[in-house]
Amino acid sequence: MAWINDNYRKLPGNYLFAEIAHRVAAYRERHPSADIISLGIGDVTRPLPMAAIRAMHEAVDEMSRAETFRGYGPEQGYPFLRKAIAEASYEGLGIEPDEIFVSDGSKSDCGNIQEIFGIRNRVAIADPVYPVYLDTNIMAGRAGRPQADGRFDCVTYLPCTEENGFTPQIPTGPYVDLIYLCSPNNPTGAAMTREDLAEWIDFARERQAVILFDAAYEAYIKKDDPSIPHSIYEIEGAREVAIEFRSFSKTAGFTGTRCGYTVLPKTVMGRAKDGSLIPLHSLWNRRHTTKFNGVPYIVQRGAAAIYTEEGRQQVDAAIGYYRENARVILAGLKDAGWTAYGGIHSPYIWLKTPGGIPSWELFGTLLEEAQVVGTPGAGFGPCGEGYLRLTAFGDQTRTAEAIERIKDLAGRGILGA
Amino acid sequence: MAWINDNYRKLPGNYLFAEIAHRVAAYRERHPSADIISLGIGDVTRPLPMAAIRAMHEAVDEMSRAETFRGYGPEQGYPFLRKAIAEASYEGLGIEPDEIFVSDGSKSDCGNIQEIFGIRNRVAIADPVYPVYLDTNIMAGRAGRPQADGRFDCVTYLPCTEENGFTPQIPTGPYVDLIYLCSPNNPTGAAMTREDLAEWIDFARERQAVILFDAAYEAYIKKDDPSIPHSIYEIEGAREVAIEFRSFSKTAGFTGTRCGYTVLPKTVMGRAKDGSLIPLHSLWNRRHTTKFNGVPYIVQRGAAAIYTEEGRQQVDAAIGYYRENARVILAGLKDAGWTAYGGIHSPYIWLKTPGGIPSWELFGTLLEEAQVVGTPGAGFGPCGEGYLRLTAFGDQTRTAEAIERIKDLAGRGILGA
Repeated sequence: MAWINDNYRKLPGNYLFAEIAHRVAAYRERHPSADIISLGIGDVTRPLPMAAIRAMHEAVDEMSRAETFRGYGPEQGYPFLRKAIAEASYEGLGIEPDEIFVSDGSKSDCGNIQEIFGIRNRVAIADPVYPVYLDTNIMAGRAGRPQADGRFDCVTYLPCTEENGFTPQIPTGPYVDLIYLCSPNNPTGAAMTREDLAEWIDFARERQAVILFDAAYEAYIKKDDPSIPHSIYEIEGAREVAIEFRSFSKTAGFTGTRCGYTVLPKTVMGRAKDGSLIPLHSLWNRRHTTKFNGVPYIVQRGAAAIYTEEGRQQVDAAIGYYRENARVILAGLKDAGWTAYGGIHSPYIWLKTPGGIPSWELFGTLLEEAQVVGTPGAGFGPCGEGYLRLTAFGDQTRTAEAIERIKDLAGRGILGA
Repeated sequence: MAWINDNYRKLPGNYLFAEIAHRVAAYRERHPSADIISLGIGDVTRPLPMAAIRAMHEAVDEMSRAETFRGYGPEQGYPFLRKAIAEASYEGLGIEPDEIFVSDGSKSDCGNIQEIFGIRNRVAIADPVYPVYLDTNIMAGRAGRPQADGRFDCVTYLPCTEENGFTPQIPTGPYVDLIYLCSPNNPTGAAMTREDLAEWIDFARERQAVILFDAAYEAYIKKDDPSIPHSIYEIEGAREVAIEFRSFSKTAGFTGTRCGYTVLPKTVMGRAKDGSLIPLHSLWNRRHTTKFNGVPYIVQRGAAAIYTEEGRQQVDAAIGYYRENARVILAGLKDAGWTAYGGIHSPYIWLKTPGGIPSWELFGTLLEEAQVVGTPGAGFGPCGEGYLRLTAFGDQTRTAEAIERIKDLAGRGILGA
């Protein structure tokens, strides 16, 4: 008799973006000629940097000749890429290439990392937040039971609200063992300062907890603002308690090309049942080599090209393009008399729903009246209610058009400020 | 306090291929000019089919223009690839494209599939076998405790020996719930017949067990032999109890390009704690969309090109190349007076060690005396002791040279028949 993993039955019915896609499809069926603009899903639209394109063409050619063909590579990534990452993103932070695990993306890494931890750890997650952290812990049986309010009884939620500047605060309740932080945050667009992070690192060191730091949007942190660290390893003590996740998806347009990495310093420890301290690096290495077989050679060559002078310039140009969208969205919403956050160190704008209407209601009104798609904040957690996420990843002309439509709606009194 | 997953501590210390690499490196250090030929790891050496190369170049170009750029694709794979697979490999077998989940390879799929099942299922695995099935069940806590003989007390081992033609037999002991079968088998090279599989399907239906069928080497089954099914779904009733895994790695040389797929018919059920039957398709879909974000678009285009007329011919040519290696290896070992199995429907040759010496001893002698690397059978399970796996994935000239050296060794009386 094959028994299922019953934890799957505790998962919320529909994945947020599937639900949005479903509602948009239904609208499109009723209005086949509607000109819908999506500022909903966090997917990029700019082509890959030419440096990556050229490197991938060359790599494809290498695969066509026996002398240069590449079969299995190291599961953890080719040295050329691990070294390029260490030099470009972790110079002076004490991170060695063999502490970098190349993967097929941050979603996989953020979802898989919990496997190396025991089931009885208490998990802390921000609310609202990217759903993968919670969902994968539910699947593993670490979240406990869902309560009437949709929250799980074995999870510590860290409310991120207007009052606390959308920054997760150290919890006062039960001890927590694994802490998911995401900065710049998806969905609120808030970025944690050096001081915010230092407080968390101190807390984690004191409690021997581990911080799982999702920095997928690091590239959007403004380079001229020293208050926001690009890596958690800029904070003293982080190498003892933090694991960092990064992605080429939002940096270099790799959402459909798939590459990211996990940084796991050898000094981060977890405790075994017998009390001994075990380097998490060895466990993650074992998981990575047993359940994964590496990223395509062609893709790794494309990713490495990002670190050439040409690649850097092209990445900067793409980030600049999306940054301009964020500026236009923020300015437009302000013109309409609305309140919005994020969008500075982040491609995400966190719009407070006018008049405090529910987020799915604002989603519906924008779709019906302006043919603009956003993501309802409630989909990211209870504290996301009353907000809508808009993304800066669209085409510039279309994004500007979407904002004009929203402003027009406000002007027509359909949505008051 | 972050607690580790203690199950990881039960894993065997060194992954088999890491241990082999270590010993070969040590030999190379002592003999820097040695001309070592590896028939060890199961990695291909022929370049990718030109049809795939061309398709990937085109896909790279698509990624360079905003109008044809592809961001996030469906996690389960693009319809063009799922449809091509269904038509080419499952025609008439009742498998729909949405029952095919495209992935980054069979290692990931075979490793991840156990996550959708409860912890208390009893797992059956062949002995010897590809280590990933057991290792991932150890990690999940399903294997129990290691015994003095290295076996785990909650696992049912299915001995595959010379006596039973290396075919796993229906167990007579405790009930089993999840059954891993691999055919053509890695490492023995044995292929299960229609009758063998029908017996297992009947058993699984009767017990409501699930068969996890690894068909990564399906392409090596001789097309003119109707006794060996290419898919488990050729067997009546399999659509109720079997999940099939396939790979482009050994078919089209994708070991470093990474693509495979899982076939999970909607009719395969597992039982929940409350007794209800749940389609495993829905659970796997949820896992796949939550912990994975799809295979690179470029790679999926390459994989789809395998199904064109040109692609098929090029794949056939590569398989024919390796098949000729297998023939040369088998014939050479026979000439040397040794006993060997497999190599007919499989790229693997399962060499019985001369005089019944331990497999690591034969490994050492071949490395020291002939500079040829094989894989010790003991690394695949206790019943692999007394065997060495040789692979047909090498260069033809080098493979022939390796076999000459082995024959010479036998002739010199270093290894008797």
